[in-house]
Amino acid sequence: MPDELQEAVCLALASACGLERGARLVVGVSGGPDSLTLLHALHALGFEVIAAHLHHGLREAADADAAAVEAVARRLGVPLVVGRDDVAALAAAGRQSLEDAAREARYRFLFRVAREQRAVAVTVGHTADDQSETVLMHLLRGSGLTGLAGLRPCRRLPRWDAEIPLARPLLGVRRTATIAYARRYGLPLRWDASNWQRAFFRNRLRLDLLPRLRVENPALDAALGRLAAVAAAEEDFLAAEARRRLTAVLAAEDDKFVGLQRQAFLAAPLALQRRWLRWAAARLGAPEVGFEHVEAARRASAYPGGGARDWFAGLVLWVEPATLWVAQRRATLPAEAWPQLPGEQAFPLEPGGSVALASGWVLTLSALSPPPDDPHTSPATAWLDASALAFPLMVRPRRPGDAIAPLGMGGRRQKIADLMVNAKIPPRLRARWPLVVSGEEIVWVPLLAVAHPARITAATTAAVSLSLRRNA
Amino acid sequence: MPDELQEAVCLALASACGLERGARLVVGVSGGPDSLTLLHALHALGFEVIAAHLHHGLREAADADAAAVEAVARRLGVPLVVGRDDVAALAAAGRQSLEDAAREARYRFLFRVAREQRAVAVTVGHTADDQSETVLMHLLRGSGLTGLAGLRPCRRLPRWDAEIPLARPLLGVRRTATIAYARRYGLPLRWDASNWQRAFFRNRLRLDLLPRLRVENPALDAALGRLAAVAAAEEDFLAAEARRRLTAVLAAEDDKFVGLQRQAFLAAPLALQRRWLRWAAARLGAPEVGFEHVEAARRASAYPGGGARDWFAGLVLWVEPATLWVAQRRATLPAEAWPQLPGEQAFPLEPGGSVALASGWVLTLSALSPPPDDPHTSPATAWLDASALAFPLMVRPRRPGDAIAPLGMGGRRQKIADLMVNAKIPPRLRARWPLVVSGEEIVWVPLLAVAHPARITAATTAAVSLSLRRNA
Repeated sequence: MPDELQEAVCLALASACGLERGARLVVGVSGGPDSLTLLHALHALGFEVIAAHLHHGLREAADADAAAVEAVARRLGVPLVVGRDDVAALAAAGRQSLEDAAREARYRFLFRVAREQRAVAVTVGHTADDQSETVLMHLLRGSGLTGLAGLRPCRRLPRWDAEIPLARPLLGVRRTATIAYARRYGLPLRWDASNWQRAFFRNRLRLDLLPRLRVENPALDAALGRLAAVAAAEEDFLAAEARRRLTAVLAAEDDKFVGLQRQAFLAAPLALQRRWLRWAAARLGAPEVGFEHVEAARRASAYPGGGARDWFAGLVLWVEPATLWVAQRRATLPAEAWPQLPGEQAFPLEPGGSVALASGWVLTLSALSPPPDDPHTSPATAWLDASALAFPLMVRPRRPGDAIAPLGMGGRRQKIADLMVNAKIPPRLRARWPLVVSGEEIVWVPLLAVAHPARITAATTAAVSLSLRRNA
Repeated sequence: MPDELQEAVCLALASACGLERGARLVVGVSGGPDSLTLLHALHALGFEVIAAHLHHGLREAADADAAAVEAVARRLGVPLVVGRDDVAALAAAGRQSLEDAAREARYRFLFRVAREQRAVAVTVGHTADDQSETVLMHLLRGSGLTGLAGLRPCRRLPRWDAEIPLARPLLGVRRTATIAYARRYGLPLRWDASNWQRAFFRNRLRLDLLPRLRVENPALDAALGRLAAVAAAEEDFLAAEARRRLTAVLAAEDDKFVGLQRQAFLAAPLALQRRWLRWAAARLGAPEVGFEHVEAARRASAYPGGGARDWFAGLVLWVEPATLWVAQRRATLPAEAWPQLPGEQAFPLEPGGSVALASGWVLTLSALSPPPDDPHTSPATAWLDASALAFPLMVRPRRPGDAIAPLGMGGRRQKIADLMVNAKIPPRLRARWPLVVSGEEIVWVPLLAVAHPARITAATTAAVSLSLRRNA
């Protein structure tokens, strides 16, 4: 007579994990009816099971739990590995809740046993009821798709092991069914007294809210299970798409900053913008970023200008015309793409000489020559009338009040500050932008402006060219 | 003194719909505090509002509702359009619930008024509480991402109008705030008595469950609102991706069938497979397809063979090696891609003659000629030894027991049925597959096999060629 629960377990392992009878599995067994049922069912199905129980010395009942697991394992003739951890001490050391510390200790233990025993998967006894609790808890606390995907039927968790998956073959089985199974096969029915403490949100959900909701929809657990399955697949697809398309948007990346190409970011679908911002925050070691912060960053990204703006968790946003930076407050953003003086000092520049700037950029002054036919070839080169210049020229950072009369503006003077604002040079790059000066007059702002008084005219007989380039 | 609710309305319209003060809006006003508050706030903000009220004669209070709306519109000096519909009759005619019929009648009315009044949007008074109810209702009844996206702050609904959007500027505002606003501005506080009838699931949600859940999370409505916003963007992205990638998977499409390229379908992400199946069902006029049916179709798609398999709602699945068909039970799937006899009868074929098959396919027999150097050029052409044939040849459908000794199998005979199975010819195409017969012997199965006894040998002096082609 085939057992319905066993069939469900068998099918779940095959379809979600590709695991067939005979596979060597570690079964995490707490001593409660769900995990004992799982152990019994897997053993009955012909899987090669190794029971694993972590005694975390938290409750008085812990010794009795261990004894119950031992008795069942002995009865089934299944090997049992018992571990021991001081979860209270771990929680204190890691500033975690007891629950979180216990869960971490448990998974660390189970995957260690799996590696030692050369098992192909770790299985745990989460049921459809656990799935309902998880999905609803995420929903009620505010969660995106990631949370609604709930517990996965089979998943690799690189945090615990890169290869061995965690399988939950009871995820489609109601708790009433595991209890009935435990009764049918004479498994001990032990209850963790903390399950009844309404101080925990999850317990209130289980004891009060879910029963009330099941009155509305008796098939609630199936509905939430379907939602989780759909959400899991859509989450996986979205995460993969966000990763795949990130490469086309990512301008720079480091432990201290992430640069996104602003136009490509703005043109991307909203769902990807949000996911990239969440990724950027995680990449920089920030905790999970909330919806409001994500939306604030999206709004900010529409308006370039200004310096660093506080974001959250010590991160800042720099919204530059070409790049949206997410960075740690003290991070120095990359400036390699732009000409920058290496420091505050000025450098003399003689005809035929050059000045080494930061990041491999070089500013060169040619020897005197006849004027060219067309002096306006590139913003990286400026031809000037040598007779208008006093050598050596100087290359220096800007000073308050600096101005230039740019070519093509009829000799009108413009402040360097305004010139940079108009050219959308990010503020952080302005202080060390190299200026080429003759006497007191700025004659070239590399990439931005040539001085009208020093321009090549029909009367020019001797000329020099200034040029900027970057050595790769 | 700026009013907080008015500011929220203004911001919502600008950010979700790009609508600014002065825009001409139709406001759907039921007479309840939410819609009256919306009317008042939009008017106060300087939008050009037209109130629209549909009297659907359902409740005794309907006249009083209309009177309340009229009084407020008059007080504000706002134009009011009142419509009237017999919703009970509509519900009976359309076999709908009263609620559904009333909603349909309301939207039809509001968009008609908007067109007549040249308004740029229809606005309605849904609040954050309505959003919470909608999201939870979808969740508890079982829903994918589409349902969790809930009510949209601004959306075009092609069903009602291709251009004019439906805006919900109160979607971020709690109902407590609209009531406080209504009190503050002396708007009538009228309640629809049916709101208190616990016979409706939505009412039980509003009256019992949501208040209980808000004890757990006082910011529940904000959390559900965020979830809806995230789900909406992810839904939009997934829907757009599913549409975009469908073109690479769609093999054929009609009101009666949808063909998906099976290999491409199987290789696609799970989330897209599910969406394409949902799309196919909708394309064929079926009601919303449930999760279990989607999963059944996915499982079926892995195993080609057999004929039509029942799916749901009168639809069937045909799983062919190259194509997954979703079709109405009586649909004739396209066979144009394959040679098919036009009916049951047989056709004589003389040298130099031809037979017209279905869908522009033609089978031609050449005149007698010397044998070619290489008779095996294409499965659409067969060269045969004329001395082994009795003219006229016949072209006919298969009969029970038909067999051929295919070239290259050492003269061993094979049943035509097996030949077709091995060649993965879909069963529905086998009955009318043309067979070329000489006397009692099948000499060519177009595209599949040439008869060994009729092959070209070194001794052949006169040959004919049979060829199959399709006239475009």
